[in-house]
Amino acid sequence: MASQFHVYDTTLRDGAQQEGMNLSVADKLQIAALADRLGVGFIEGGWPGAIPKDTEFFARAAKEISLRQAVLAAFGSTRRAGGQAHNDPQVRALLDAETPVVTLVAKSDIRHVERALKTTAAENLAMIEDTVEFLVSEGRRVFLDAEHFFDGYDFDAAYALDCVKAAAAAGAEVVVLCDTNGGMLPERIHQTVGAVRPGVPGAELGIHCHNDTGCAVANSLAAVEAGAMHVQGTINGYGERTGNADLTAIIPNLVLKSGLAALTPAQLADLTGVAHAISEVTNIAPFARQPYVGTSAFAHKAGLHASAIRVDPDLYQHIDPQLVGNDMRMLVSEMAGRASVELKGKELGFDLAGQNDLLSRVTEKVKALEADGYTFDAADASFELLLRGELPGGRPEYFRVESWRTISETLPNGHGGEPGKLGASSPDAETASEATVKLWAGSERLVATGEGNGPVNALDAALRLALGGVYPRLASIDLVDYKVRILDSARGTDAVTRVMIESTDGSAVWRTVGVGTNIIEASWEALTDAFTFGLMAAGVQPAA
Amino acid sequence: MASQFHVYDTTLRDGAQQEGMNLSVADKLQIAALADRLGVGFIEGGWPGAIPKDTEFFARAAKEISLRQAVLAAFGSTRRAGGQAHNDPQVRALLDAETPVVTLVAKSDIRHVERALKTTAAENLAMIEDTVEFLVSEGRRVFLDAEHFFDGYDFDAAYALDCVKAAAAAGAEVVVLCDTNGGMLPERIHQTVGAVRPGVPGAELGIHCHNDTGCAVANSLAAVEAGAMHVQGTINGYGERTGNADLTAIIPNLVLKSGLAALTPAQLADLTGVAHAISEVTNIAPFARQPYVGTSAFAHKAGLHASAIRVDPDLYQHIDPQLVGNDMRMLVSEMAGRASVELKGKELGFDLAGQNDLLSRVTEKVKALEADGYTFDAADASFELLLRGELPGGRPEYFRVESWRTISETLPNGHGGEPGKLGASSPDAETASEATVKLWAGSERLVATGEGNGPVNALDAALRLALGGVYPRLASIDLVDYKVRILDSARGTDAVTRVMIESTDGSAVWRTVGVGTNIIEASWEALTDAFTFGLMAAGVQPAA
Repeated sequence: MASQFHVYDTTLRDGAQQEGMNLSVADKLQIAALADRLGVGFIEGGWPGAIPKDTEFFARAAKEISLRQAVLAAFGSTRRAGGQAHNDPQVRALLDAETPVVTLVAKSDIRHVERALKTTAAENLAMIEDTVEFLVSEGRRVFLDAEHFFDGYDFDAAYALDCVKAAAAAGAEVVVLCDTNGGMLPERIHQTVGAVRPGVPGAELGIHCHNDTGCAVANSLAAVEAGAMHVQGTINGYGERTGNADLTAIIPNLVLKSGLAALTPAQLADLTGVAHAISEVTNIAPFARQPYVGTSAFAHKAGLHASAIRVDPDLYQHIDPQLVGNDMRMLVSEMAGRASVELKGKELGFDLAGQNDLLSRVTEKVKALEADGYTFDAADASFELLLRGELPGGRPEYFRVESWRTISETLPNGHGGEPGKLGASSPDAETASEATVKLWAGSERLVATGEGNGPVNALDAALRLALGGVYPRLASIDLVDYKVRILDSARGTDAVTRVMIESTDGSAVWRTVGVGTNIIEASWEALTDAFTFGLMAAGVQPAA
Repeated sequence: MASQFHVYDTTLRDGAQQEGMNLSVADKLQIAALADRLGVGFIEGGWPGAIPKDTEFFARAAKEISLRQAVLAAFGSTRRAGGQAHNDPQVRALLDAETPVVTLVAKSDIRHVERALKTTAAENLAMIEDTVEFLVSEGRRVFLDAEHFFDGYDFDAAYALDCVKAAAAAGAEVVVLCDTNGGMLPERIHQTVGAVRPGVPGAELGIHCHNDTGCAVANSLAAVEAGAMHVQGTINGYGERTGNADLTAIIPNLVLKSGLAALTPAQLADLTGVAHAISEVTNIAPFARQPYVGTSAFAHKAGLHASAIRVDPDLYQHIDPQLVGNDMRMLVSEMAGRASVELKGKELGFDLAGQNDLLSRVTEKVKALEADGYTFDAADASFELLLRGELPGGRPEYFRVESWRTISETLPNGHGGEPGKLGASSPDAETASEATVKLWAGSERLVATGEGNGPVNALDAALRLALGGVYPRLASIDLVDYKVRILDSARGTDAVTRVMIESTDGSAVWRTVGVGTNIIEASWEALTDAFTFGLMAAGVQPAA
């Protein structure tokens, strides 16, 4: 079974239907190369003829990427009602894509045939037969996606089966049963695939699920259990509505839980890397809780169990995260005991074993700060600075702060913020912010004023102006994410504010946190931590 | 079956383990009220005794919220090895929480008993029996969470069963089989629950799943199919690692697909509203692709099928989205906008039917503003002001703004914000903010300076000082909630900010929104809208 089993990736076609996703041809080429690197069997590149970008993708893919393992598939529909396959422009476009595989989509729900396609049951069957036969005669391997199959089977099983049989009889290698609306549960999928299988002796069955019930992964597995030999899905579960079945969960489940060698161990160990690289290309933020590959997937928070986890990690995780290229992480939280502080330290490269006084001191500090609203489980850099403050050598002091001040105001000729302004095309054109910082770097006093489109942006500018001469390295540090959370927000504008800042030097990424009733002070704290950590990580020495 | 079936919400306990989640007691009270509004049977409030915040939660919940339907449960572990239940401090803390239900967690995997608990198989059984018996004798309904049950059952089925039987024999009402590490697939869950059930005649079985294989929803459903009468999960699937089983998917699957009346139709229609309200409290951005309640869950990319979807929506969606309080969205559509503006107007008491020019104008404005980052779903007051601006009579002008300015700075003798400050017990004691506003109310020019512990708080004070004499009514308007969300946060401190303010006059509550790259200007906009709406709603006439 394993040798013939197909993983079919439709990230570039069905995945690209996701709200907010807009892939260029270059993006698609990159994603195809990454899916190939992972080791999927087939990559559906798009719909040539219908989408100009996809036509271009196939033309360029042939020249620009050499796939090591995956086979390219072009997707398109059967010939038009009343027409002929060999001169149907859409079918010709599929041939022109020059892929080894063509995946045809066809209606298999009689209601869609009649109401959406507006043709007859018989003509739809003829469209399937003609188109499959023609493409096979042209040397293509043909897969057929039976759209709305499960709903159609519930409504009129005989007709849905006729569609599938027509495709198989005409030479389709795989007939893919699609839960197009995504409403199925695993039990029904299992029963239906089991019931259909004996009726389609000439072809393998495939499965194509959407996640509308939250069961796309389980539905896909249920189909495989019932005999499906081909699984369609997308990397990261991208897709329209709730997304397609997520291959980054289906594949490790098949390999590690069901013993199906859908990927080699080395390929599987690349899963997290490929999933994250693809989310860089799509520019869609990864979902932290994503099974197997999410940044939180193997993150443990409970302080009570930290010591036990250290001794027996296998008792607390369902697989070794390295099998899928992920890592176990210990989160420092308000339930932190000394054990989790020790583990976290180890993760950051500090061996704190046996230093009980130090561990107690840091743990107490973390607890007190978390009671004030700080959180360190997503602010490793602030935690490391806190820890270093307790270690010999201490926290490096690149600058001391004498004072800072920010001013935000309406411009003299502006009308910023007046009632009724709602609807101005550039809502912030009429206000300005500036900040002045007075610092000491070693024995040098530095004073600078920066401007920005908000008070924090202005402080950021002022800090860079003041310190840039002493620490040129600051120029390579960028703030890439800024988050504000109002704690105890029911106190209105008097509430406590927590600011999280994410920074990068182009390769490493670090996160810092600040808290205060004054949002600007909280931001200042996270900002100065971010700069301090960035300089320290780069090995910069504090000015004397 | 339906009448006894339990939905057990553990958002406040196991959900709170999610990375980055940090709930205050006030947050927890709000979430409990929302879960009760949804109609879950049980709400697990936390772990009294182990977590001080949770002890406080139970004390305040008894006084501050009145649950309409849900029953509160306190969570904690069985007595210590070698001890006695009646004088175990942890067990006493469970009694002190004074909840009708106590949910005990107990080991059921012999490896955890020996290696983590470091006690014997027999003592663990005695700990279960003693603790259940004692709590039952104190009048509590006891549920028992059998931790690591499925892994334990695979390793040593007889011992895992002994644990479950001991709990049932001692009087536990429900024994909950936990897939604590989340590594199971539905088939195995189904088999195991079916195999265990006959051995535990005295108690109902429950199920508690985590989403590490991407199958938590399907696993929970598989257990119910095999006879489990109690399902644990969290709203929005919050939880450690990949999260707990998502009740917002499990519940509609049970009701709409399996015909189990876990909620009434009216409660189910509140599902999306409750899920979004809870994500406002947790301040964790909702996942657009979340099944049933996600903003993309019923969003269709218009194109080839747009007209077909309009004619026959049922052919393209697995359920009517209104059943769960969600909406179908066409991603490229103009009609949807006008219709919803008309509907929203009607909701606010304006009959706009047939006023096509007005509807088009307002729709265009809303679209442009939403593209800038505004959202009116939760800001009815700002929407009403916008709408009134287009109606005869216009938006009432209580004041015109000449200018405003805020200054935030470190105090002369302070050391606010210097590096290394992290850990100061009062992080904001050393900074101050003031604001000056120059306004016109009718023909009168008003200038006032206010102080506050942040720039927005200072603006609020200055506005009240300036306008209080002309509009005494302002004294009865309080700002009760202030929220900040960074949009496009990847632009660092240069990002666009959305501020939402909730205000009250003691009876009515209204919400306003402001947007800008300058957080202070965005806050100013929401603030002035809040005051304008409050004065208007009270029937106050603008000064001449």
